[in-house]
Amino acid sequence: MKTVRIGQLGLGRLGYEHARNLATAVPGASLDAVCHIHEDRLVQVADELGIENRFTDFAQMCADPELDAIVIVSPSIFHTEHIRMALEAGKHVFCEKPLDTTVEKCKEAEALVAAHPDQIFMLGFMRRFDRSYQKAMEKIRRGDIGRVSMVRSYTADPFSTIEGTLKFAPKSGGQFLDMCVHDIDLIRWFTGSDPKRVWAIGDTFEFTQMKEWNDTDQSCAMMQCENGAMAFIYASRVAKNGSNVETEIIGTRGQLRIGAVGTDTMMEVFTDEGILRETYADWVLRWHDAYIAEMAEFVNCIREGRKPEITAHDGTCASTVAYACRDSYESGKLLEICY
Amino acid sequence: MKTVRIGQLGLGRLGYEHARNLATAVPGASLDAVCHIHEDRLVQVADELGIENRFTDFAQMCADPELDAIVIVSPSIFHTEHIRMALEAGKHVFCEKPLDTTVEKCKEAEALVAAHPDQIFMLGFMRRFDRSYQKAMEKIRRGDIGRVSMVRSYTADPFSTIEGTLKFAPKSGGQFLDMCVHDIDLIRWFTGSDPKRVWAIGDTFEFTQMKEWNDTDQSCAMMQCENGAMAFIYASRVAKNGSNVETEIIGTRGQLRIGAVGTDTMMEVFTDEGILRETYADWVLRWHDAYIAEMAEFVNCIREGRKPEITAHDGTCASTVAYACRDSYESGKLLEICY
Amino acid sequence: MKTVRIGQLGLGRLGYEHARNLATAVPGASLDAVCHIHEDRLVQVADELGIENRFTDFAQMCADPELDAIVIVSPSIFHTEHIRMALEAGKHVFCEKPLDTTVEKCKEAEALVAAHPDQIFMLGFMRRFDRSYQKAMEKIRRGDIGRVSMVRSYTADPFSTIEGTLKFAPKSGGQFLDMCVHDIDLIRWFTGSDPKRVWAIGDTFEFTQMKEWNDTDQSCAMMQCENGAMAFIYASRVAKNGSNVETEIIGTRGQLRIGAVGTDTMMEVFTDEGILRETYADWVLRWHDAYIAEMAEFVNCIREGRKPEITAHDGTCASTVAYACRDSYESGKLLEICY
Amino acid sequence: MKTVRIGQLGLGRLGYEHARNLATAVPGASLDAVCHIHEDRLVQVADELGIENRFTDFAQMCADPELDAIVIVSPSIFHTEHIRMALEAGKHVFCEKPLDTTVEKCKEAEALVAAHPDQIFMLGFMRRFDRSYQKAMEKIRRGDIGRVSMVRSYTADPFSTIEGTLKFAPKSGGQFLDMCVHDIDLIRWFTGSDPKRVWAIGDTFEFTQMKEWNDTDQSCAMMQCENGAMAFIYASRVAKNGSNVETEIIGTRGQLRIGAVGTDTMMEVFTDEGILRETYADWVLRWHDAYIAEMAEFVNCIREGRKPEITAHDGTCASTVAYACRDSYESGKLLEICY
Repeated sequence: MKTVRIGQLGLGRLGYEHARNLATAVPGASLDAVCHIHEDRLVQVADELGIENRFTDFAQMCADPELDAIVIVSPSIFHTEHIRMALEAGKHVFCEKPLDTTVEKCKEAEALVAAHPDQIFMLGFMRRFDRSYQKAMEKIRRGDIGRVSMVRSYTADPFSTIEGTLKFAPKSGGQFLDMCVHDIDLIRWFTGSDPKRVWAIGDTFEFTQMKEWNDTDQSCAMMQCENGAMAFIYASRVAKNGSNVETEIIGTRGQLRIGAVGTDTMMEVFTDEGILRETYADWVLRWHDAYIAEMAEFVNCIREGRKPEITAHDGTCASTVAYACRDSYESGKLLEICY
Repeated sequence: MKTVRIGQLGLGRLGYEHARNLATAVPGASLDAVCHIHEDRLVQVADELGIENRFTDFAQMCADPELDAIVIVSPSIFHTEHIRMALEAGKHVFCEKPLDTTVEKCKEAEALVAAHPDQIFMLGFMRRFDRSYQKAMEKIRRGDIGRVSMVRSYTADPFSTIEGTLKFAPKSGGQFLDMCVHDIDLIRWFTGSDPKRVWAIGDTFEFTQMKEWNDTDQSCAMMQCENGAMAFIYASRVAKNGSNVETEIIGTRGQLRIGAVGTDTMMEVFTDEGILRETYADWVLRWHDAYIAEMAEFVNCIREGRKPEITAHDGTCASTVAYACRDSYESGKLLEICY
Repeated sequence: MKTVRIGQLGLGRLGYEHARNLATAVPGASLDAVCHIHEDRLVQVADELGIENRFTDFAQMCADPELDAIVIVSPSIFHTEHIRMALEAGKHVFCEKPLDTTVEKCKEAEALVAAHPDQIFMLGFMRRFDRSYQKAMEKIRRGDIGRVSMVRSYTADPFSTIEGTLKFAPKSGGQFLDMCVHDIDLIRWFTGSDPKRVWAIGDTFEFTQMKEWNDTDQSCAMMQCENGAMAFIYASRVAKNGSNVETEIIGTRGQLRIGAVGTDTMMEVFTDEGILRETYADWVLRWHDAYIAEMAEFVNCIREGRKPEITAHDGTCASTVAYACRDSYESGKLLEICY
Repeated sequence: MKTVRIGQLGLGRLGYEHARNLATAVPGASLDAVCHIHEDRLVQVADELGIENRFTDFAQMCADPELDAIVIVSPSIFHTEHIRMALEAGKHVFCEKPLDTTVEKCKEAEALVAAHPDQIFMLGFMRRFDRSYQKAMEKIRRGDIGRVSMVRSYTADPFSTIEGTLKFAPKSGGQFLDMCVHDIDLIRWFTGSDPKRVWAIGDTFEFTQMKEWNDTDQSCAMMQCENGAMAFIYASRVAKNGSNVETEIIGTRGQLRIGAVGTDTMMEVFTDEGILRETYADWVLRWHDAYIAEMAEFVNCIREGRKPEITAHDGTCASTVAYACRDSYESGKLLEICY
């Protein structure tokens, strides 16, 4: 089958993860070009991965007729613009989450995708490609746990990375936009329904400097979906034990729990204090295999002419709910969610 | 030290558990009298436990000058009345939760206790006496997990007992009053603060007949406490795997999780499907040791002239919050909680 | 039913555990007398437990006509002698493990028990009364795991108690006699067969001073039973994480694992290093409930005129195997076990 | 860096796993040729993976000057012969375990490798490349658990694959040679010492037809190493719950346990019977990532001119010990192991 020739935009931390996976671990893909705004980083990564086509100008990379597809890992604020450029150049597009930073721009991106029906577009909700989440969804679809009544999802970033968080937080859009979009997508995926009401709370329990830009270091949101299903989200930037994402799906005939608590090996360490399971140091380690699997799916969709399950609309919905969480937190009110 | 002579009112399922513990397992206690409205049950239990003093009239038992203390396990609707009778007869009183069925009556009971300052009064929040919860509280008090920012508490009753639940449910006051009082007490205990706002939701995901009396088979509530701490409650009457109570306390310096997932032995069973940990079949099995420990504390308070940590006011507060949950569920509104 | 009046000999650490359980937690039992060689310890414990009949001379306690039963927790070297005195005084007898310190004396004790067929005799293999072990045996008897093919049993004492161990070790008979008798009993119980061949090894991996008295700080033994079942024992005096007893029973249709790894609560502690389950600090904490349950069984056997499942012969067999382990370790040979 | 051009011999189940990994998942490798004795299988796999150079004659593939390296996944009985051909053709060689089927042939292979010092040779002990085992070894090398005193290693194949096992067993060399070579390698790796004495036992607990060819369905071996370290192996062909490999390393300062019990996701399933963790259905699923990692190491050794840690001598030693296990089982004797 034809190799899919890919150009990637953005070589930050996650960009590097994707580029490396495309260059070394995704079957059927060939990373043929990379684009990054800063030349030194561009050279460093391109050298390491042996990529010869290097761009600092995204328009130029889009103009390369050899490329089949573009992978966008640029700052979220530019996503819609970059999606437009790539689609209009006739490329298939993979875009990292979130779709964009406002609901209006998300809808604009959605319209762009709709206007190019023959090109594959896929959004980077990689958790859906994690082996544990895949198996959970299989069971749910098979009816093993009956009707889904409650989803609980935690995303906790480690205390150890707080410095970076504090630096980045003022521009992050707040904890709900920055951290909870994945949890919201999982809620929609597992319940098969859109959240319709939400109440969100949070506080700066530890890092009071965050109050200044009206952000939180820990926050919660409770939602009720169109079909009655209930959901609870907890996000933390100060988890002592590392990176912890935990999702639980309760149904009328059973219950599934993923990653309670995720550990990075099958090893138990017997210490002075008891039995220790070491958890993931960070999110890239936690999701490494899922990042590969989602890219493989993108490549396969292109090769097989299939549409991915994850759509631009999923991106709009997740952002809409995340904004509703933030508005609820800021206003202190229970809110109806309008799509 | 002096043996505490106890008379117990009520010999239903939990009444039997308490009576048997008092007769056989609580150091320093002597179960000298039992009272129950139905003579056949009274005779059966009294014979089994070898109790000679038997009453069908509670006033008569209260009049027995040999008794130091009364343990009340009567229907919740009569608690305040029975507390009054026992206190006015000069007895120390242990009363099962909830304090009573309305906030007004709870406050009345509280006033009665205040009017008898020399008599010990203790309310049956036995979870506080569970070894796991005790150790968690020790760690919290020692500052091990910093400031408590979030408490999550699940109470799930097994599917297998649904028949009894359906029979009892119409008179139970609804899932929040019936099941969540313990979770609410834990939230107040671990955060050291009172919930001030609540939103509660729920549905009849499986047993639609419950809609008739406006009850739910699964429900959730999210709360914010006076001190900013957040809390989430989930209650279920349809857990496939048995009785599951799970409580998590997240702080700014660590996190504790109890019973994720509680099993009744240290045994792992290797089956065709994988590795199985068998969970508690019901709540009496789960809390057996805690029921003994709470009675031991009651007896020791009497012997040592100490006041128990759990007060009548705790009972009023838990009921106030449970009512607020129900009102929020019924009205669909986010509510401020007034004490 | 009649209360069983008990006199207990020996008030060391385990003696105190038994005495306290008999005085406060064993239904149907009354601890009416205690005997200990050192008067100050005798007074201290008897005062605490409120026992008025106190003896420093065991013969005198045996002569007390009010006592139905004697509980022997004296040094192992005197067990047979004390069993003789109690049986000849017409008392029911509970004796702590091991039955005695040599196989000859074990057989003598066995003969004494056989000569008093109307008196109850029970040996203190309390692990059989642990809730996890009880449930495992239920499953095995029900055929849930088919034919038992392999039993693995670990007994690990914590590093933290090494000082006491080093002081006591020279007189303990060595690690196999001192620590493995319980594991051997479990192997016989779960396989339903006697070990017929054994090879045992061990070394002083940490505490080389033990070499002096030819003892080990860690040792292993592998056995084959009459019916073909295989067994493996590991004993350690230097476990970093506390007291760990773990037993696994593999059958042709399933597998059971108990206490992998035993923790003293259902609590998980999230720390800087990962998720921690705290283990038992020592063996008395681990087996507290089993100690109560075995005494309850002893008392019930007396009240109901039943013979206990654990016999003197079980004690002889366990000691025979433990000696074979020691002989194999000392000679470096694979040994046939003669009963 | 230069791409390593590889030709692979043998396309059975494990051969397919390796070929697919080399073609799609191993960075720096290019699977340029495949060789298999049966043409239909050869065509099927080569078509699927898009390999154009196809051979039924191994000598011809070795003669291809474009190939840098040969991966041997042929029947064990031919390993030494194939190693000779590949080495003499000037290729780097990766050979699946075991090195060969007799100790003499293993030593012959070792000599061949020694005679070609400039060519990379690596043996397929893939467990060493599993992430959990890697992290365990890191801790051991760092001294985290002190001196290694005991290693326990289980290899259990699922009951569900028993039909294939029974068909293959008569020619497998018996359970010790067929299944325990990996466990033996882990013991040597973790203790840093060679086993010097062994006693092995086993039986046909379920499949008595195996008696015919003197094989076992479950077996155990206990060993003592040169440095005093102890080891225990258990192998089963009848595990109800799937494929279970579990390894425990006990040291004087701590203890590590890997895969107790290995599950293929982080998911917990709440069922009628309790909480279920689903285990690996088979060994290829369990070790998939390790198979990739070991191939990556082989490729990197070639590219970087490094020698792999795993040598032909490791293969000879593992086979020597496995034969000693079999001899001990067959003779019923405790054996000294001669290398």
